[in-house]
Amino acid sequence: MTKIIYPGTFDPIHNGHLDIAKRAAILFDELEFVVAVNSEKDPLFSIDERVKLIQDSIHSISNVKVAKFKGLVVDHAKQTGAKAIIRGLRHVSDFEFEFQMAMMNFHLNEKITSLFMMPDEKYIHLNSSVVKDVSKNGGDISAFVPKCVSEALFAKFSK
Amino acid sequence: MTKIIYPGTFDPIHNGHLDIAKRAAILFDELEFVVAVNSEKDPLFSIDERVKLIQDSIHSISNVKVAKFKGLVVDHAKQTGAKAIIRGLRHVSDFEFEFQMAMMNFHLNEKITSLFMMPDEKYIHLNSSVVKDVSKNGGDISAFVPKCVSEALFAKFSK
Amino acid sequence: MTKIIYPGTFDPIHNGHLDIAKRAAILFDELEFVVAVNSEKDPLFSIDERVKLIQDSIHSISNVKVAKFKGLVVDHAKQTGAKAIIRGLRHVSDFEFEFQMAMMNFHLNEKITSLFMMPDEKYIHLNSSVVKDVSKNGGDISAFVPKCVSEALFAKFSK
Amino acid sequence: MTKIIYPGTFDPIHNGHLDIAKRAAILFDELEFVVAVNSEKDPLFSIDERVKLIQDSIHSISNVKVAKFKGLVVDHAKQTGAKAIIRGLRHVSDFEFEFQMAMMNFHLNEKITSLFMMPDEKYIHLNSSVVKDVSKNGGDISAFVPKCVSEALFAKFSK
Amino acid sequence: MTKIIYPGTFDPIHNGHLDIAKRAAILFDELEFVVAVNSEKDPLFSIDERVKLIQDSIHSISNVKVAKFKGLVVDHAKQTGAKAIIRGLRHVSDFEFEFQMAMMNFHLNEKITSLFMMPDEKYIHLNSSVVKDVSKNGGDISAFVPKCVSEALFAKFSK
Amino acid sequence: MTKIIYPGTFDPIHNGHLDIAKRAAILFDELEFVVAVNSEKDPLFSIDERVKLIQDSIHSISNVKVAKFKGLVVDHAKQTGAKAIIRGLRHVSDFEFEFQMAMMNFHLNEKITSLFMMPDEKYIHLNSSVVKDVSKNGGDISAFVPKCVSEALFAKFSK
Repeated sequence: MTKIIYPGTFDPIHNGHLDIAKRAAILFDELEFVVAVNSEKDPLFSIDERVKLIQDSIHSISNVKVAKFKGLVVDHAKQTGAKAIIRGLRHVSDFEFEFQMAMMNFHLNEKITSLFMMPDEKYIHLNSSVVKDVSKNGGDISAFVPKCVSEALFAKFSK
Repeated sequence: MTKIIYPGTFDPIHNGHLDIAKRAAILFDELEFVVAVNSEKDPLFSIDERVKLIQDSIHSISNVKVAKFKGLVVDHAKQTGAKAIIRGLRHVSDFEFEFQMAMMNFHLNEKITSLFMMPDEKYIHLNSSVVKDVSKNGGDISAFVPKCVSEALFAKFSK
Repeated sequence: MTKIIYPGTFDPIHNGHLDIAKRAAILFDELEFVVAVNSEKDPLFSIDERVKLIQDSIHSISNVKVAKFKGLVVDHAKQTGAKAIIRGLRHVSDFEFEFQMAMMNFHLNEKITSLFMMPDEKYIHLNSSVVKDVSKNGGDISAFVPKCVSEALFAKFSK
Repeated sequence: MTKIIYPGTFDPIHNGHLDIAKRAAILFDELEFVVAVNSEKDPLFSIDERVKLIQDSIHSISNVKVAKFKGLVVDHAKQTGAKAIIRGLRHVSDFEFEFQMAMMNFHLNEKITSLFMMPDEKYIHLNSSVVKDVSKNGGDISAFVPKCVSEALFAKFSK
Repeated sequence: MTKIIYPGTFDPIHNGHLDIAKRAAILFDELEFVVAVNSEKDPLFSIDERVKLIQDSIHSISNVKVAKFKGLVVDHAKQTGAKAIIRGLRHVSDFEFEFQMAMMNFHLNEKITSLFMMPDEKYIHLNSSVVKDVSKNGGDISAFVPKCVSEALFAKFSK
Repeated sequence: MTKIIYPGTFDPIHNGHLDIAKRAAILFDELEFVVAVNSEKDPLFSIDERVKLIQDSIHSISNVKVAKFKGLVVDHAKQTGAKAIIRGLRHVSDFEFEFQMAMMNFHLNEKITSLFMMPDEKYIHLNSSVVKDVSKNGGDISAFVPKCVSEALFAKFSK
């Protein structure tokens, strides 16, 4: 069985993330979203809210799961038996950051392979920051996020 | 069974290609190098020489094969039952070209997924052109290519 | 009256070019495609074929025209009363090339302004080379080019 | 009448911004600087100071105005009858950020077109952060900003 | 005598920095690390700790020194008789930032030349942030930093 | 004595090259332009014409010389006692190519250091191809090249 993990902050999950996960889940036996407990100083959603939003977005895909992780992502991969890390690449700036992380992860554990996918082009302009920014300014983001996320964003910003 | 293909010109194969193939072969049941018959106007090695050099480089890895292909790479993938295409990414310029190809391939057949890997950093400066250029100018390229390739390059340039 | 020109090789025109032209034509009184007579060493379509394919693609837009040009694009702009040059930007590599051209054009005639637009994201993977390559290999490019162009490509490659 | 807007933080305006505005103002009937009320967490100059510095810098150009805006820039464009957004591009990193914004703005309102210009090369190294940083460290920035801005910076940092 | 300076935050120094310094020190009579007193809002190590860690890392190289600086780096260069600034380049994003700084420094004092070097490829994935991040999460960073730095990081994070 | 070499095709030399050479020559005892004998398939100027144009451009700078070279640039450096290679960086695309060459040269001879400089920003849009292209189309390139080069270009293209 080949398991891969999809690490990130997911504050919140959007359709670009889901597109990567769905297409990667066809190629592997199991894909696990792993949400960094302390990766971002000031997330909009708590770690538990972020995990819950992913769960609500993936419940129909049988071989996709979600978990939290603390510490190094390669250590989490090893402990849970994952052979690879999957990450999305949308832009050159993504590429450089991911390149640096992949190199460091290779040094920390060369048995964990980093794989990359490009999302469907209709999602290449998406990231969690722009989704939050547009939502906060009253823009309609329902085409870019699962329904549970657009509702959660609306609830946050209409407080 | 999950099969992937690794398309390219491979004029000639070098250790960066082999590094990608070996690490990808751990994650999938079968990896097939597919060599473009007419991708390059004026290759140094003929299509049959390029296929032979790959064969000689991979004979010890049981689930890695090599074949030629003509036409669209997504059509070849479909005909041979491959679910994904694997490609190496070393640089920003690679990234942009690959991005464009991945988008077009997605439009031509959205069931074939493009996956990317970064080679071990000791190979990130390698490409077939620089290998040929250094070899032609008498430089030692034995650290960058399999033995059969350094011999083939020596034979070409000492003629 | 503000006229702009849209210079290029257009070998052949595709939907990304048309998208730029249509949206720019709303902002200016007249837009003229100007096709470089000798910009490419070995074009697939002759200069007259390229002009004809543009004409057939734009006949329904009243303020868009097409012409040939020879020499420097800023000289053509000046002679025909155009105040600006419009160009599409899809990628970082586009950006660097365009940047260099815009700087040189500014030095040659600082009254001609270079403007840039990004195409609709569904066309960002398009360029004339990839369109020709896919068509030559039997791929369906009807979603990416006007009907007259897909017919012209089919005619070229089925010879 | 074709009106365009030039949105930004302008904390503070510098000669690169002015160069873009002056050259764009030749091509359109009206250009309006629109200053984001809450775009930056901790600006050096208040929103009213930033608007005032722009006003003092543009008073000699009859078809250039300045306003504040809140919310989405495409909504502000629509409300004030602007048909396009103009932005400067200096670097690859600019390009990627602007690309993402342009795509999102296109989705939010496809009638508002994003246009880009490159500043005169003598301003390509300029941005508001480096201007503030040099000024704070006692460097002479009078060649890079309008006189009112160099005075305002001096007043801020000599407090 | 030709002296150069190597400015930075060095929070903390790592092997990529040392590689640049050692190779540059062969080409010039004297190389001085100059550590920015107030460049970073919230450094992990105080200015004196950062200077001490550099001192402990370079004591065996006779023509390499370390100093603090405040204000503009070109002013520090002039005051201490340095003719050039050396900086490392690992990535495209480095390049753009360095380009901007080099241009501004050229304007501030055109007699001080900016020089760039690329580190040994085994260090291209290294930067101080990733070193701190891996160390904080319990990863082994002894291959990437001098012994005094790995001990200092361990001491910080085991508190 | 520290000698450096400045390798390239120089088809033809332009003011950006001269700017790099003049500023580097201040930092080192000797700088030698080294012109690749067979680097370009179809140069406009012969190897001897290119060397002559450099000679005519540098005769007033006492510690700058010019020579031809064949084979690997690191071998030429070693044979002539040069300790470093200097190259200009104008753009991200330059950076990636130079990065790859620097890495390969480091592997071929790690005692030869690659150094990089950015030209004065008024030359960042310059390269030999754009100079030739503008000149061929009748544009005025006298601000971008030494007088001997503009005359040589005029002579070539008015034949």
